[in-house]
Amino acid sequence: MAGNSFGTLFRITTAGESHGPANVVIIDGCPAGIPLQESDIQKELDRRRPGQSKITTQRKEADVPEILSGVFKGKTTGTPIAILIRNQNQRTKDYEKIKNIYRPGHADFSYDAKYGFRDYRGGGRASARETVARVAAGAVAKKILTRYKIKIVGYVKQVGELVAHISSPEKVTLKQVDSNIVRCPDKNVAEKMIKLIEQVRKEKDSIGGISEIVASGVPAGLGEPVFDKLKAELAKAMFGIPAVTGVEFGSGFEVATKRGSENNDTFIYKNGQIQTQTNNHGGVLGGISTGMPIILRCAVKPTSSIPQPQQTVTKNGKQTSISITGRHDPCLLPRFVPIAEAMMALTLVDFF
Amino acid sequence: MAGNSFGTLFRITTAGESHGPANVVIIDGCPAGIPLQESDIQKELDRRRPGQSKITTQRKEADVPEILSGVFKGKTTGTPIAILIRNQNQRTKDYEKIKNIYRPGHADFSYDAKYGFRDYRGGGRASARETVARVAAGAVAKKILTRYKIKIVGYVKQVGELVAHISSPEKVTLKQVDSNIVRCPDKNVAEKMIKLIEQVRKEKDSIGGISEIVASGVPAGLGEPVFDKLKAELAKAMFGIPAVTGVEFGSGFEVATKRGSENNDTFIYKNGQIQTQTNNHGGVLGGISTGMPIILRCAVKPTSSIPQPQQTVTKNGKQTSISITGRHDPCLLPRFVPIAEAMMALTLVDFF
Amino acid sequence: MAGNSFGTLFRITTAGESHGPANVVIIDGCPAGIPLQESDIQKELDRRRPGQSKITTQRKEADVPEILSGVFKGKTTGTPIAILIRNQNQRTKDYEKIKNIYRPGHADFSYDAKYGFRDYRGGGRASARETVARVAAGAVAKKILTRYKIKIVGYVKQVGELVAHISSPEKVTLKQVDSNIVRCPDKNVAEKMIKLIEQVRKEKDSIGGISEIVASGVPAGLGEPVFDKLKAELAKAMFGIPAVTGVEFGSGFEVATKRGSENNDTFIYKNGQIQTQTNNHGGVLGGISTGMPIILRCAVKPTSSIPQPQQTVTKNGKQTSISITGRHDPCLLPRFVPIAEAMMALTLVDFF
Amino acid sequence: MAGNSFGTLFRITTAGESHGPANVVIIDGCPAGIPLQESDIQKELDRRRPGQSKITTQRKEADVPEILSGVFKGKTTGTPIAILIRNQNQRTKDYEKIKNIYRPGHADFSYDAKYGFRDYRGGGRASARETVARVAAGAVAKKILTRYKIKIVGYVKQVGELVAHISSPEKVTLKQVDSNIVRCPDKNVAEKMIKLIEQVRKEKDSIGGISEIVASGVPAGLGEPVFDKLKAELAKAMFGIPAVTGVEFGSGFEVATKRGSENNDTFIYKNGQIQTQTNNHGGVLGGISTGMPIILRCAVKPTSSIPQPQQTVTKNGKQTSISITGRHDPCLLPRFVPIAEAMMALTLVDFF
Repeated sequence: MAGNSFGTLFRITTAGESHGPANVVIIDGCPAGIPLQESDIQKELDRRRPGQSKITTQRKEADVPEILSGVFKGKTTGTPIAILIRNQNQRTKDYEKIKNIYRPGHADFSYDAKYGFRDYRGGGRASARETVARVAAGAVAKKILTRYKIKIVGYVKQVGELVAHISSPEKVTLKQVDSNIVRCPDKNVAEKMIKLIEQVRKEKDSIGGISEIVASGVPAGLGEPVFDKLKAELAKAMFGIPAVTGVEFGSGFEVATKRGSENNDTFIYKNGQIQTQTNNHGGVLGGISTGMPIILRCAVKPTSSIPQPQQTVTKNGKQTSISITGRHDPCLLPRFVPIAEAMMALTLVDFF
Repeated sequence: MAGNSFGTLFRITTAGESHGPANVVIIDGCPAGIPLQESDIQKELDRRRPGQSKITTQRKEADVPEILSGVFKGKTTGTPIAILIRNQNQRTKDYEKIKNIYRPGHADFSYDAKYGFRDYRGGGRASARETVARVAAGAVAKKILTRYKIKIVGYVKQVGELVAHISSPEKVTLKQVDSNIVRCPDKNVAEKMIKLIEQVRKEKDSIGGISEIVASGVPAGLGEPVFDKLKAELAKAMFGIPAVTGVEFGSGFEVATKRGSENNDTFIYKNGQIQTQTNNHGGVLGGISTGMPIILRCAVKPTSSIPQPQQTVTKNGKQTSISITGRHDPCLLPRFVPIAEAMMALTLVDFF
Repeated sequence: MAGNSFGTLFRITTAGESHGPANVVIIDGCPAGIPLQESDIQKELDRRRPGQSKITTQRKEADVPEILSGVFKGKTTGTPIAILIRNQNQRTKDYEKIKNIYRPGHADFSYDAKYGFRDYRGGGRASARETVARVAAGAVAKKILTRYKIKIVGYVKQVGELVAHISSPEKVTLKQVDSNIVRCPDKNVAEKMIKLIEQVRKEKDSIGGISEIVASGVPAGLGEPVFDKLKAELAKAMFGIPAVTGVEFGSGFEVATKRGSENNDTFIYKNGQIQTQTNNHGGVLGGISTGMPIILRCAVKPTSSIPQPQQTVTKNGKQTSISITGRHDPCLLPRFVPIAEAMMALTLVDFF
Repeated sequence: MAGNSFGTLFRITTAGESHGPANVVIIDGCPAGIPLQESDIQKELDRRRPGQSKITTQRKEADVPEILSGVFKGKTTGTPIAILIRNQNQRTKDYEKIKNIYRPGHADFSYDAKYGFRDYRGGGRASARETVARVAAGAVAKKILTRYKIKIVGYVKQVGELVAHISSPEKVTLKQVDSNIVRCPDKNVAEKMIKLIEQVRKEKDSIGGISEIVASGVPAGLGEPVFDKLKAELAKAMFGIPAVTGVEFGSGFEVATKRGSENNDTFIYKNGQIQTQTNNHGGVLGGISTGMPIILRCAVKPTSSIPQPQQTVTKNGKQTSISITGRHDPCLLPRFVPIAEAMMALTLVDFF
């Protein structure tokens, strides 16, 4: 079964492994006439790139995109856009010796169960390396959304016990987010997060967190009722990103303890349009956007690859232990932000 | 755009409004040779049925299914199965007077924004009435899963501040769940939940909660990598149910405060197969099942329809207030359980 | 695998067997605000109805449609439209005795090969009875196309050796077509066709023919390049109708003997728009409409069910003979026309 | 809308223009464990390659495929396979001067009508250059079909008035087909075809023809009833190839003059299985394969690009004339064969 496409009208299909020759994405259904050049894509790839700061993996990847089709004289033509990103900094040898050992928290075992064997180099297709293709496609989606004045901004909301204080999620700017290496717009908390991540790395461990992604400027009336609700599609998009263990919108899991009279958002008429006074609903009612900011949060687990020794088994069920010595992010959150933004952009653009 | 189908290989398409003549589902892709009769479907519809207890809506619906096709001499033929459920106990007049008022928490405004107008009787297509068709289809999906020894059990985990204590989610039985009207297998907490819901109803309010759904017996190797991950499809399924505001798997949002060394599940070899010692991952790694129980939780908001007066606006933006006097559930959770089970069954069966 | 849906944005899903309780169609993706009532559908069903003339099957079916959803106060709401057509005039006993015999030209054997068994009553799902649901959906599609001033007219072009002379296919009117019972706008040839069909029936045989379907008013620019070319989708639609053995567009199979200099249509500028002087290309170039009339022809085989004895085998491979004594059309063409029109309408509306 | 994918379970997505940097295909849904290397693909690309003989275009393209993903240690892994084919021998200047002139028979006008502008270099996406990606994917599909002992052989049946005599289509071998440059297994007729094509080229013209494609070894029971009939999917596949104007199966358009008693194929029991004595039905009944060879024919129009002057208009509707001086095939048929085989393979493999 084919599971490597996302979207219906604006559909992307990705291919590529962590340690193969390249990652590729084909974008099908992009409207004609959108200005597009490789630098538009490079900009987003740079935000996702490994080795960008002291708190990310130290692996170096140039991640240079080449547009192979669908663009003519600087504009999209309406035909499919293929983008190629060659892989470079691969240390395949690191993986030869652990090819029969199931790394805890990884997909090694489940891939073997499904396919009978796997490309064991760096997680193969299950590696987050694959998201490079999504971010490239997301850059194109963002360009289209800009036309509709839709803005997507994501940031790190929580790392460990450290929670950022964000009074107005829809007012956070890209500049604020990218002003520090942990991508948290609350400067004070950001500094503490950076220290915590550095400490966790020293302890040969990793740590989880929560990212909040906000789309503002989305017009009312977007989405489909019943199965393809806007929340359903966005949740699918987010759970498609490696390491996501939970997704919530608006008041999210807090609704469990709320009364209807508290949780219902009052409709008001303001600035010539119908809005809600509060935004507990997170911008979507009945699967369709209300025009209020769409607000979602993703729980992201601590990186599975940690340098300290862990108990596990081999392919044949023999007990063993493993210390994963590659170059890994001690916390996935800072690099998660551009990926989640890309997936939100790809989801929204599919409804236009 | 068409958004009323779910699944690819085992695909259901639903139609029907709250106060129209009927709800219908067509199941396409059901294998031939499955024994099926209307009583199989009736059994599940009865668990979802309004008026089933003192803590649900008092609206009465017989919800009798008629199989129109795809079954011959008691067995499915491989051709599409259409199931018809006529609507009965409709009080259309209740809605005429509020047709221009946007009920807080409801999809009235967003439907108008999308379609220009709407069938305002009882929420029309946005009503949870529509889920009757899903539960009918889910009954068929469950019959198929039984062949593979896959068991799906859902229950109410939390209502307001009341949290059930469930030591082994995968051991909870349907009998335990259906032994009380709130569908919570922790008897002591169940009694308190019932009292709380009755009190909330007296206060002309509603209350939210959390439901946990468990699939056991799922073989390792099910699911697709990348976009159509098993978690992604299950989350889409759950967020397609009205009132869901959050979905999490395994340790869920708790991962934010966890270290990798805590959260990683150790692989072990037991009873002739590879398993994990703990189940923080919730049964899915890299989008593919591991053979461990699949455990997810849904946050369900308090019912939007409450009898107390609420501020809102009319279609033309004029301020007004509304008291919703229809017959509504003070807490959605007890009737949510069979719907969520149905959606989990429909998601899993699509991967076979 | 699910194969009972057609279309992407305007998608129909059908269910129902020849001798089951009913046929149903769900139309998903119909725009809101289209006036629709059951009489719109009845009109098209009447053109397809068995027993409509002396040269069709004498089986009587009222074919009364009931709209179950998606229409409110006489207009479509944008939500799925379910249409129910109960089956009536079934003679199930006719089929009990031949349930183990493979009728030549029918799908009895291939269904058994695929599903292991089949609903043998009247062909079950393989019966042309199933097209009643498509014609119902096609009536809705036609209403939408009318808004865009697109007109679809089909007619019988050939029966046996009798070929109608049609100088301007795009000028043929529905009135001309329906002015005689064989649905051939060339009156002289129509009379001969009727006589031929009556004679064939007396000889306990059946006869094939060709139908031509024309869409005029289609704007230039409709269709998708590469795989989902307009011709590709239309051909798929036509080959989805039982008994179709060939489809051609414009000059069709005649191109084999033509030179490029003959077959190329010269572009001209006329009445303020770019057109072609001739229409060998049949209204589509590179998969995209040119604004010229879309012209296609379907070859329709002689009815497989014939009253004369035929050699065949039983399910167990034993040689036997069969005389099919039910009520069957001696020539499928007159009733084929509304079905093919419906499929063309459903294909075109999906591109809007 | 996205229209550059083909298939559901084994789905290919192509990208690339005639004169852009490259053509790419992503194959999604290929089973794991199929031996695959670039030479498997090269072999098929060589059969399609321009410049392969004196009767094809003299344009030179090496058409070297690079596998970018989905293959590990010589075997497919179950993850998507991306294949890259760089474009080389482009003469972009040829097209600058005709960028505003609509070439008769080409998609220049319809692309402009759809997208507003187009990549005018060599037909851009509408060029048959794009089929290089399909042939690459088809090579993979053929490898899978070989496992099931399914063999696909296509050949040239007719060029102009010259018709090959093929007594047993299912017995024609690849070797026979490729033994001459026109790919016609009837040697005598092949020689005449070659001469005719050479003569047509001298006359600065082009000529059409018919190709027959046969799949043998297809088991009974493949295909879906109703809309996704095997014939419907195959016809869609064939009409997706540029220049196809008609498709027929088995007795095809000849059915128009046939009686049911002539056209019905008698079922017999032979060699331990149920078969038909004749094969007028072309291997498919009721949309499902019967186990008999699948036989279809495609009408292919004469190449639209001809060197002699033709009347046409410019983008602004001004009358002009054009002589297309590029390097073009005087007859498309010899190079059509591997493309049609690829599309048949891709269609069949999607049903497994």
